[in-house]
Amino acid sequence: MLLRTDLPATMQGLQSIFQEQEMTETIHDTEGHGYLVTFIGKNGRFGVLRAHSHGLVTFDLQCCEGDDVAQVDNLLNELEKKMKSLLHGNIKRIKRLPALRRGDEVDRYWPTADGRLVEYDIDKVVYEEDSVYQNIKILHSQQFGNILILNGDVNLAESDLAYTQAIMGSGKENYAGKEVLILGGGDGGILCEAVKLKPKMITMTCGNVLDSLTGDCYEVLVEDCVPVLKRFAEEGRTFDYVINDLTAVPISTAPEEDSTWEFLTLILDLSIKVLRPTGKYFTQGNCVNLTEALSQYEEQLGTLSCRVDFSKEVVCVPSYMELWVFYTIWKK
Amino acid sequence: MLLRTDLPATMQGLQSIFQEQEMTETIHDTEGHGYLVTFIGKNGRFGVLRAHSHGLVTFDLQCCEGDDVAQVDNLLNELEKKMKSLLHGNIKRIKRLPALRRGDEVDRYWPTADGRLVEYDIDKVVYEEDSVYQNIKILHSQQFGNILILNGDVNLAESDLAYTQAIMGSGKENYAGKEVLILGGGDGGILCEAVKLKPKMITMTCGNVLDSLTGDCYEVLVEDCVPVLKRFAEEGRTFDYVINDLTAVPISTAPEEDSTWEFLTLILDLSIKVLRPTGKYFTQGNCVNLTEALSQYEEQLGTLSCRVDFSKEVVCVPSYMELWVFYTIWKK
Repeated sequence: MLLRTDLPATMQGLQSIFQEQEMTETIHDTEGHGYLVTFIGKNGRFGVLRAHSHGLVTFDLQCCEGDDVAQVDNLLNELEKKMKSLLHGNIKRIKRLPALRRGDEVDRYWPTADGRLVEYDIDKVVYEEDSVYQNIKILHSQQFGNILILNGDVNLAESDLAYTQAIMGSGKENYAGKEVLILGGGDGGILCEAVKLKPKMITMTCGNVLDSLTGDCYEVLVEDCVPVLKRFAEEGRTFDYVINDLTAVPISTAPEEDSTWEFLTLILDLSIKVLRPTGKYFTQGNCVNLTEALSQYEEQLGTLSCRVDFSKEVVCVPSYMELWVFYTIWKK
Repeated sequence: MLLRTDLPATMQGLQSIFQEQEMTETIHDTEGHGYLVTFIGKNGRFGVLRAHSHGLVTFDLQCCEGDDVAQVDNLLNELEKKMKSLLHGNIKRIKRLPALRRGDEVDRYWPTADGRLVEYDIDKVVYEEDSVYQNIKILHSQQFGNILILNGDVNLAESDLAYTQAIMGSGKENYAGKEVLILGGGDGGILCEAVKLKPKMITMTCGNVLDSLTGDCYEVLVEDCVPVLKRFAEEGRTFDYVINDLTAVPISTAPEEDSTWEFLTLILDLSIKVLRPTGKYFTQGNCVNLTEALSQYEEQLGTLSCRVDFSKEVVCVPSYMELWVFYTIWKK
């Protein structure tokens, strides 16, 4: 709420509402930073009412599980009504935000890569474990299905065929009879879609996570991808498509400060080595808003031992709640 | 944070951090609802530290615009470190949420239809006005482009071609030479896409909002759609496609309590009347999670004066941050 008037007088006009709710008031000395009063009520309710000198009034209400929601709504409605009346409707904006739920068994807040607060419709913890590498969670979302979350980052949900299609070239490639190398992709999404396209052979490097490590047209190497790529490069083995599903572009650090960038360039260099002259390398970038990280990645592409060109595409991956950039890279 | 230990003692162990920050402490009597202490600091900082008896500890920090973000982060880091040390790492979960920004010129919080808190990357207010019908906002999102927000509901963004395609039959229809009736759609998205498909004629009913009210193959009637539909029904004028882009399925009330449902059924009945026997009626439903509202809508379809069948499709509309249901309805 935004108001322009005598703050303490207006705030005191709200007292009766809290008295009716049997909430005990404490007025705090803010040393000149507006008017601040807290209220403690029954059932563990705690309110913070604050009026800033520039006219912003905030009210935060903490309630415990099992509190009477209708009663809480009523308190907020009364407050809003009284404020309007005290200020004769002279309010620029009123906004009530959905409650933040804390300490629930299911955590519904998984911020986007660009740092925005988003609440998911998580209703169940399907799996949670700390591996030696990372924290692994599978949470169930009502609309997105199961979501894989690694170290707090939403990786992939059952709703996200758009991710898999994008990192395979968005349906513009003919995989029939082709040789494909998948780096990572342990969730199995790319492999599952790729085998449908009748490639000659898919080689995949990832952890021992899939039910079957070999199939009619695929083989999973339970190995780190770097030695595998080095071996293939030495042997002169090449591929029509290399799909890097290992990690997103790092966002928080400059290339010279982060070994992830070094890793990324190493993989890229080796991948381009095992790519046929007409082959294509596909990978994810990051959130479209992280323009600096994406620019840095594109600069890195200019430093590879082999000269490459690239194109990018912005794709909506449903469970990400942000638009994502995918790259196609080829030899010049 | 979740902990199991002597709460007051642990909380008091955190005092030194607040003292270092020159924050003044007030301990509140919660009448048996855990330990609650507030802190007032310089620059208008205000903290609420609360430990619930079941082990949840929350810390809320209010900061004013222009506060030193690095210093605030440092305070939170110190708190986390000290908590870990006091509890000997016996913590089940630690979670820090992005700050909620309140009172900004741009409002970044536009909850989903199913009531979840989501933050948008809004960076500019392009337009805001109260019409006689509703509050109209156009806000600019970094990733979604301009977003039309009506009465606080995200209606459509420049990123949302998926919405337009879905409400036109998801590319499975042949519009060439067909007669099309669009109800609403004043944002122009459907009209813009439909004219590309070389229909015989598009008739659209909406407000006087488009640059041009007639074109080679379209005509906009600046009229309420109900009298138009009634007139067409009387004249025996029929269409191959009727696209209803007026409103989503109401979510908060039962059909017998809300005139919106009555309006919806009236429009549906009239639309089916002007639909050719092989024609199709397209419309949006609502968020896929609002299963009750969607079921009610489907029940309403069974009460129309003409018997109809329907199919539905779940579509990801980027700026909605939730999956959306679209209906195709036809005469049995």
